[in-house]
This record gives sequence, C-alpha cells and structure tokens, in this order.
Amino acid sequence: MRYLVAPDSFKEAASAQSVAQAMKRGILTADPYAECRLMPLSDGGEGLTDALVHATGGDMRTVETVDALGRPVTARFGFLGNREDPDDAAGVRNHERIAVIELASASGLERISPADRDPLTASTFGTGETIRTAIEAGATRILLGLGGSATTDGGTGLARALGYRFLDRNGRELEPGGGALTRLARIDDSAVSEAVKRMPITLACDVTNPLTGEHGAARVFAPQKGADPKQVELLDHGLARLADAIETFNGRNVRDMPGAGAAGGTGGGLMGLFNASMRSGIDLVLELTHGREACEWADVVITGEGSIDAQTPYGKVPSGIAQLAKSCGKPTIALGGTVTRDPRTIAWLKETGIIAVFGIAPGAAGLPALLADTERNAEATCAAIAATLQLHVA
Amino acid sequence: MRYLVAPDSFKEAASAQSVAQAMKRGILTADPYAECRLMPLSDGGEGLTDALVHATGGDMRTVETVDALGRPVTARFGFLGNREDPDDAAGVRNHERIAVIELASASGLERISPADRDPLTASTFGTGETIRTAIEAGATRILLGLGGSATTDGGTGLARALGYRFLDRNGRELEPGGGALTRLARIDDSAVSEAVKRMPITLACDVTNPLTGEHGAARVFAPQKGADPKQVELLDHGLARLADAIETFNGRNVRDMPGAGAAGGTGGGLMGLFNASMRSGIDLVLELTHGREACEWADVVITGEGSIDAQTPYGKVPSGIAQLAKSCGKPTIALGGTVTRDPRTIAWLKETGIIAVFGIAPGAAGLPALLADTERNAEATCAAIAATLQLHVA
Repeated sequence: MRYLVAPDSFKEAASAQSVAQAMKRGILTADPYAECRLMPLSDGGEGLTDALVHATGGDMRTVETVDALGRPVTARFGFLGNREDPDDAAGVRNHERIAVIELASASGLERISPADRDPLTASTFGTGETIRTAIEAGATRILLGLGGSATTDGGTGLARALGYRFLDRNGRELEPGGGALTRLARIDDSAVSEAVKRMPITLACDVTNPLTGEHGAARVFAPQKGADPKQVELLDHGLARLADAIETFNGRNVRDMPGAGAAGGTGGGLMGLFNASMRSGIDLVLELTHGREACEWADVVITGEGSIDAQTPYGKVPSGIAQLAKSCGKPTIALGGTVTRDPRTIAWLKETGIIAVFGIAPGAAGLPALLADTERNAEATCAAIAATLQLHVA
Repeated sequence: MRYLVAPDSFKEAASAQSVAQAMKRGILTADPYAECRLMPLSDGGEGLTDALVHATGGDMRTVETVDALGRPVTARFGFLGNREDPDDAAGVRNHERIAVIELASASGLERISPADRDPLTASTFGTGETIRTAIEAGATRILLGLGGSATTDGGTGLARALGYRFLDRNGRELEPGGGALTRLARIDDSAVSEAVKRMPITLACDVTNPLTGEHGAARVFAPQKGADPKQVELLDHGLARLADAIETFNGRNVRDMPGAGAAGGTGGGLMGLFNASMRSGIDLVLELTHGREACEWADVVITGEGSIDAQTPYGKVPSGIAQLAKSCGKPTIALGGTVTRDPRTIAWLKETGIIAVFGIAPGAAGLPALLADTERNAEATCAAIAATLQLHVA
C-alpha cells in the first residue's frame, strides 16, 4: 500500500512537515509494510517558502530590507533545490534557479501593529528589494506568494525597487504608497534592466478580485489594512490611475484581470509591468513538488489542515491535492483538528476528491489541549485509517 | 459490503439503539448499497434488559415490589421475543420463555441515598419477588444481570422470596440482610416449589471475585455500599457462614467459585441454592442475539461505547463483539466519544479484534456539547469509515 502523505500545516499547532511525519508514524504502526511518501504542502499563503524549500531540498536566505512603512526588517526567501528523495517529495528536475518569496515576509500586515497602520503610504518596496537580492543571487525565476500584505500600492513600491519610476505630471517621482497614485501621470522604465524585464515571475494567488471597483483591492481589502472609507476611495482612484498609466505605457489592460486586486493591487501591477503570470498557490506548489507524479505513484492520499470546513474547497491544500489525485483516479482522505459535520460541505468535499473526513480529537477537550496534541492525535487517527484500509488489501 | 452495527450505549449520551441507528445512517450515506444489520448491545450491566428485549422484539413488564431496604418500588423486567428481522438483530429461535431481570432494578444501590444506606440489613428480596413474578408469568428461564446491588446478603433475600428459609440454631428465621447471616445455622427448602428448584437461572456477571476473604464480596464491594470496617468483617463472616450452611445443606462448595462474590454474594448464594450457572454478560448477550451468526454474515463489525479506554478489553461490549468477530475471521472497528491514545491499550484492543479506534469528536468541545451531538458525530464518523472501506471494495 502506497501512501502519499500531503498535509498543510495545522495552523497554530504544527507545521506541515511535523504533521506529515506524525501521519507516517501512524500509518507504519498499523501497516509496517506501507510505503509512505511525505509531501508537506502549502496553499501559497503562509508556509509557501518553507513547503517548497523543504520539498525540494532547497535553502533559505535572509535579506535586510524594509517593511511596508520603510522600517528596517529582516525578510526570508528561499531557493528551491533539486532533491529527489524516494522517502520524501519529488524535487525539481530542471536547472532553473527558482527563488520563492512571500510578499508578507517583508511587506506583511502582521509586521505592523494596528496603531501604526498607514494604508496610504504602505509600500511593497521591501518585497522588491527581496526580489532584487534573489536575482543578484542567481535566480532565473521568481515565485511570489501574494497574500497577507499591508499595502494597497498596486505593487509600485516593488517595481520601484527594481528600477521603475512612477512620475507625476511634472515628471517628479511620487512618494511611496497607494495614496500618491492619484497623481500618477507616467511610468518610466529606463532604469529597469533587461534581466529584470525578462525575469519570469509567477504569482501564487488565491483571489480573483479585479484591480478596482466594487470588488477591487481597495474596497475589499483596504479596510482590514486600516483604511477609512475616504481613504478607500482615494486608494481605489489611485489604482485606477495606475491601470490607465500601465495601459498608456505598454498597452496592457490589467484593470479587470482576475487576481489583479490581490495583495493591494500587486497582482495587477506586476502583470502590467513584468513578465508575470498568475497561478493558484496550491496548483503551483503541486506542480513544483511533482504532485501529479506522486499521486500516480500512490494508492491513497492522506491530507489535512487545522480545520476542514466550508472554506476547504476554495484553493486549500486538501481540496487541491484531492483534485489532482482524483484526476489520477486516486482517493484522498482528509484529517482535521476541527472538521465540519455539515452534509452539504462534506458532499462538496467529496466532489473535490476527498472521500472521507476524520477529526483527530480524542474526546472532550479545549482548544489549547488539542493544539498541543496535534501530532499524537494525527498519528493515532492515521493508524486507525491505515488499519481500516488494510482490511481489503489483506 | 455487510456491516454488523453493534454498539453499546454511549453512557449519559445516547442509547445503544439510537447510536446504532445513527451509525447505519452514516454508513448508508457513504455507501448506499451497504447492508446493515443493527445489534445494539449491553455488557450485562445497565441496559441488559433493554438490549435483549429490543434485539429480540420482546416486551417489558413492571412489578410492584420492595427495594433493598424493604421500601415499595416499581421494578422492570422483560421477556425476550423471537423476532427475526433481517434488518435488525437475529431473534431467539426456540420456544423458551426467557425473562431478563437486572438485580439493580429492585435491589440497586442507585435507589438508596447515601444517608439511607444500611449494608447489614440490605436485602435482595425485591429481586426474588421479581423472579417469582416472571415465573408466574410463564418464564421457563431467568437471566439475571448482577451488578449495581446495594446488598451483601449472599442472595438470601432473593432466595427467601422464592420459598427458602434461613434459620438460626433455634429454628427461628433470620432477619433480612447479610448482618444476620452470622447466626445462620440451617437452610430449609420445604416451601420451595419443584418448578423454582428446577428453573434454569443464568447469571450475567463480569467479576471473578470469590464469596469470602480478601477478594470476597464484603471486603471488596461492601465499603462502597456504606459498610465501615467492622461491618465489612461481620458481612464477610456472614457469607462464610452461608457457604458452610449451603455445603451442609446440599454438598455444594461455593466459597471459592469465581464470581460467587458478585452482587454482594448473590452469585454464590444462587449457585449454591438454585439451578444457576454463570456467564460473562457480553457473551450471554451475544449468544441470545445470535451474535456469531451475525458476525459470520458480516464483512466488518462496527461497535462503540462512550469511552474506549484501558477498561474496554475487560468484558465490555466492543471487546466482546470483537472477540466473537475475530473468531469468525471478521475485523471490528470501534468508535468512542472519548478514545485512548495509549499505544499499549490500542495494541491490547487489537488483540481482542478491534483493528481500528476512531474518536467521534469534531474538534475542540466541552463534554456537554459532545454528549448532545453523539448521534451526529457517530453518523459522520461512520460515513468516513464506510467511504474508506469502500476504496478497496470498488
């Protein structure tokens, strides 16, 4: 029996790597002859860098840069490796040097205390510096995980760190942040190197919001970044102006592109100004970790995340790996610290390929106790699942 | 796929019948073509009457009698039926009229408030009256579930209700209760009918304590019935005197018989004075519900109880049905409101035939919420199990 063990992290409780190890222990307790391949995953949000670097045997780097408010900060990024460990995930096979970066690492909202939030000036400049560092270190492709940003600058800060200039009608450079974009008149790329212009950038993104308007970056996401209604309108105007300027600059229309509104418009800005393409985070992760090959190898996939609920079918790890496995004719079983009992959600999960959902809680317990026991409970539940699966293998 | 659905009650939460129905719903959700046979069980303690009467389509009766202290009380007993419902448990096939009685129904400790407990005079007389009523109503066999008694009278109250007389050296009848047995000189059965003497009585019992001594009924069980150390010694003396008197009366030596100490010596008294035999409760229940036949029919057994823990291997429903199923070459999966994570206990459960243990809790929750959701959680967990089992059936 071949198990592909491919969980997300159990948020607040255990990393994907640690959960995967526990699941493997449980499977081997019940079925010592089982073959387990570990593929700890991420849906492109938090943990993207760790998941990909770990899966491919890559390495982590740090960079001294600035946060969304321009304050010094140490950000992390990684280079994917090319490890192929039969007991672990399949590695990357070609000779690209792929750097993986989370926008939130430098420009994340979590770095800014609520009192300090400044939605009009918050900038993605630090992420641009991180990308520049990665390119200088030899990257031939950039993976950028969107999500968790403190910014609504349409990615202009990021672009500026890579040589772009955003000018007002007098040819003067704008101040950082989305607030200044209302005065944007022209984009200048004379200081952008050809290497940067050609650099393939893949955006890992799980929202489909357009750049502007009712469902745009400002109206939907800026309030949680501290913007009041007036600031929201200003930011929306700024992003519209950015879209106009990009269209004037190179003819690209990013305004209504799905995902252009991701990360405060960074999606749209990068699609407009760089050699960027957009992917679902989990699909990207599965591609880079050779998920299809792993699913074809496996008899069954075991996945999981902190909570298996009505959000799970939307681009989350369990549904992502399940859909891939289903396309290979393989079933997926999902574990959760918390699991839904709603029959409609369970039916929907079944559509994605998750044929069974098991909670790992051993009885009445508070959240802290359950979080602390995540690995042990995942292990025991996997032992029971493997024993059940063995019934008809025997 | 054929499922034998054979849970115990989930104590404080749901009856065995209700849990079994929920389990069946879950199985059919995942596998509409599954065949389910419901066999709600009891281990011979609380719920014995209900489980057997329900499983066989029998009927419940009530009787006006007395509790252990002689106070009026309405006790319940049942007659087994002979229903054979293919969708339900197999019924009793022969033409015996089997009455099933729990000693605790009339003579139980739960009927007596702690302040009223009187271990020296507490008597099983009410249970004897219940048996007499059952015989008068046509019973040809009595099943008596021991356990939960308030008494340490060696079953002499019960015997007295059926005609026995317990006399002192002056030929005067003793007062009720174990305290008076120290003056027992002679047993008289002249008023006991032949029908009563021949009546087969099967005792459902899950302890192996001898009648007297260090592990006897008085020393081990009388303290929890309210006896102080001096009373314990008195009661132990009384039971020893009863064993002597029985041996003098008919040559039977019950003193060290395993289970003689059950229910305050009722085990020993009945083995000495009646046509009684002793059985493990769960084994008896499984025999009467044609458990072996059901296990042979099934592909897999689903069982469960409120808590799957270190006590489960000792004559509890899940281990009882699992052992029977194992002897038929069939695997058992157990569900619990609370489940052990102790590897040694799980290994031991595996020895009994329980190949997998699943908790039904959906996440962090307090006991009241879990108890209230027992059926829904059991249903969802069985759906996941049935989906998992189907993988290799397909």
